[in-house]
Amino acid sequence: MKLTISRNDLNEAVQHVAKAVSARTTIPILSGIKIETSELGVTMTASDTDISIQSFIPLETADKRIVTIHRGGSVVLPAKFFVEIIRKLPNDEVHLEVGERFQTQITSGSIDIELVGLDPEEFPVLPHLEEDRMFSIPGDLLKSMIRQTVFSVSTNESTPILTGVLWSLQDGVFKFVATDRHRLATCQIKSDAGDQLRFSNVVISGKTLNELSKIIPDQNLLVDIVVADNQVLFKLGNVLFFSRMLDGTFPDTTKIIPTSFRTELILNTKALSDAIDRAYLLSREEKTNIVRLSTTESGSVEISSSSSELGRVQEQLEVAELRGEQLRIAFNSKYMLDVLKVVDSEQLFIGFTGAMSPIIIKPDHENSLHLILPYRTTN
Amino acid sequence: MKLTISRNDLNEAVQHVAKAVSARTTIPILSGIKIETSELGVTMTASDTDISIQSFIPLETADKRIVTIHRGGSVVLPAKFFVEIIRKLPNDEVHLEVGERFQTQITSGSIDIELVGLDPEEFPVLPHLEEDRMFSIPGDLLKSMIRQTVFSVSTNESTPILTGVLWSLQDGVFKFVATDRHRLATCQIKSDAGDQLRFSNVVISGKTLNELSKIIPDQNLLVDIVVADNQVLFKLGNVLFFSRMLDGTFPDTTKIIPTSFRTELILNTKALSDAIDRAYLLSREEKTNIVRLSTTESGSVEISSSSSELGRVQEQLEVAELRGEQLRIAFNSKYMLDVLKVVDSEQLFIGFTGAMSPIIIKPDHENSLHLILPYRTTN
Repeated sequence: MKLTISRNDLNEAVQHVAKAVSARTTIPILSGIKIETSELGVTMTASDTDISIQSFIPLETADKRIVTIHRGGSVVLPAKFFVEIIRKLPNDEVHLEVGERFQTQITSGSIDIELVGLDPEEFPVLPHLEEDRMFSIPGDLLKSMIRQTVFSVSTNESTPILTGVLWSLQDGVFKFVATDRHRLATCQIKSDAGDQLRFSNVVISGKTLNELSKIIPDQNLLVDIVVADNQVLFKLGNVLFFSRMLDGTFPDTTKIIPTSFRTELILNTKALSDAIDRAYLLSREEKTNIVRLSTTESGSVEISSSSSELGRVQEQLEVAELRGEQLRIAFNSKYMLDVLKVVDSEQLFIGFTGAMSPIIIKPDHENSLHLILPYRTTN
Repeated sequence: MKLTISRNDLNEAVQHVAKAVSARTTIPILSGIKIETSELGVTMTASDTDISIQSFIPLETADKRIVTIHRGGSVVLPAKFFVEIIRKLPNDEVHLEVGERFQTQITSGSIDIELVGLDPEEFPVLPHLEEDRMFSIPGDLLKSMIRQTVFSVSTNESTPILTGVLWSLQDGVFKFVATDRHRLATCQIKSDAGDQLRFSNVVISGKTLNELSKIIPDQNLLVDIVVADNQVLFKLGNVLFFSRMLDGTFPDTTKIIPTSFRTELILNTKALSDAIDRAYLLSREEKTNIVRLSTTESGSVEISSSSSELGRVQEQLEVAELRGEQLRIAFNSKYMLDVLKVVDSEQLFIGFTGAMSPIIIKPDHENSLHLILPYRTTN
């Protein structure tokens, strides 16, 4: 292989695929990036077996030449060093030449680099997915759905299925569910997928979704999603992102979400968030994060927390609406703050069915719903 | 004690003194901030015994009232929570009232906080320094001198004196020296101190100087420096910063700095820094950080490094001047990059007296000088 390539385009492709390189792999070939030429351009691939990212660099764009392939071929180069040195090359053009035993020469201006390359035949082959089960959603919407749910996945590896987000598609409704048994987040949108395309129990690791989120550009790009047997493929322009699904059955969570409430609140999202943040500061010192919410006779809400060592914080909060029974409830303020951070409406709804029952938080639209289990305290 | 105080001014003072609160103190009173009223205003103090910071809030400034003292007194409040809650109070005014057994009530708008306060009599008394040994230097200059030297202090606690920067003042020349036995940094300026004021062997902990640096405002403020027996006091407007000196005698380093050279280079600072940074990327993988510099027959310089696992990087660098003998030398590229980061001139001088002798790096003015010991390699 011998090629001349634009530094900026090479750098962009390499930075993308680098996100799939595992920092601590025991399989040497997986610590590399595979570079491969074709008649159409150059393809970069990296994989940690859970996720694989492929980035394609075309020979030219409308207005300029990007790659000149003098001799086709392929090689695997050590990712960590390769990624950093490409980022730090000062010249516009990079020459890459693979010699005997994959010894690779990289030159750019007065800089001369020799790298020990690996045999590309050893690199894992990416699955070929049938693209008949494909639908598309705008990238910013996919990012938002990930953000609304991914913080609620379990970090406990003893129940691996809960470290992922459950995806389903039914009658065109694309839905995410995440839970760690103490809280639950769900989010759904109407997609462009027809009634024919449907799936359920597709569970994708929270970690993978965070990586995917980073790679989705902020410009409004349509992301194509292909769901296959045990893999999901995301197509983002010249970048392909493959993810393994998690094995196992995600628990049915529909029954634990109450639909009628004994106490209902509507209040300002920021005001509630700020008040709970202040109470959290004190509760954190007790390591419990317990904060209390009580309705008052005058129709407002009191947020409070106390610490035996430090003291007490107490705050009155005006509400837009308070319906139903008086209530006094305790909860993990960190969980509540996590929810309030992603609620994207000025006002929100909180519904209670008693001090021992799940708390439901909803923005003023129907796209997402959050659930937090209360603390069972005696006072 | 009972007072009403502007939230912004209280917050600013509290953020300043908080830098002296030790996160892991076993002495409960030192985890607090002391608040004390006087006829002139309110003083906040925090101390970890190595450094103490005091911030004064006057009753009023030219255009507005800041503090109203309803009843004088003092209290010590738990720093960590107090600092964060004051930062997060939404209202302009804060009321503070100390009750029985130092129980303190803080109210602001609809927020009501009760804090367990401590007895201010238990708080350490700050030293009273005679101000006859005082001189002043501009804050940005002091910051720059700290930055030029502090990275070279030792992190090895077995020689505590080398974890500090040596200060001296002689004939109006104010000088800093730092060394960890592998490298040395020195920096000096002509101060406004007369010939009468002189000191030597004043050694101040590198950690303390980093904290001091953070507290010096970016505006061009004159910092008053008072040197006493075993303490140095810095006066920055309404903030006083006390630092203990380190015990012991700083080694004499004047003799190890060569004054004549066998090879001399003048080159562009950024070009050298970028080239060494690229070579460092590879040398880092070998954990040695060894980079080589060689002069070439054609009068340029070659920067290179190699790794048995990864390969080799080699780069030609144009120099503005090359005088004296041909040279091939190896050094710790991390140390060199640390120096190049603080060199503030476009071109720099490097002087060598052989492959086994100290390397001297100087900007194109005489204010600072850096020394790095080379690696003794066989090839």
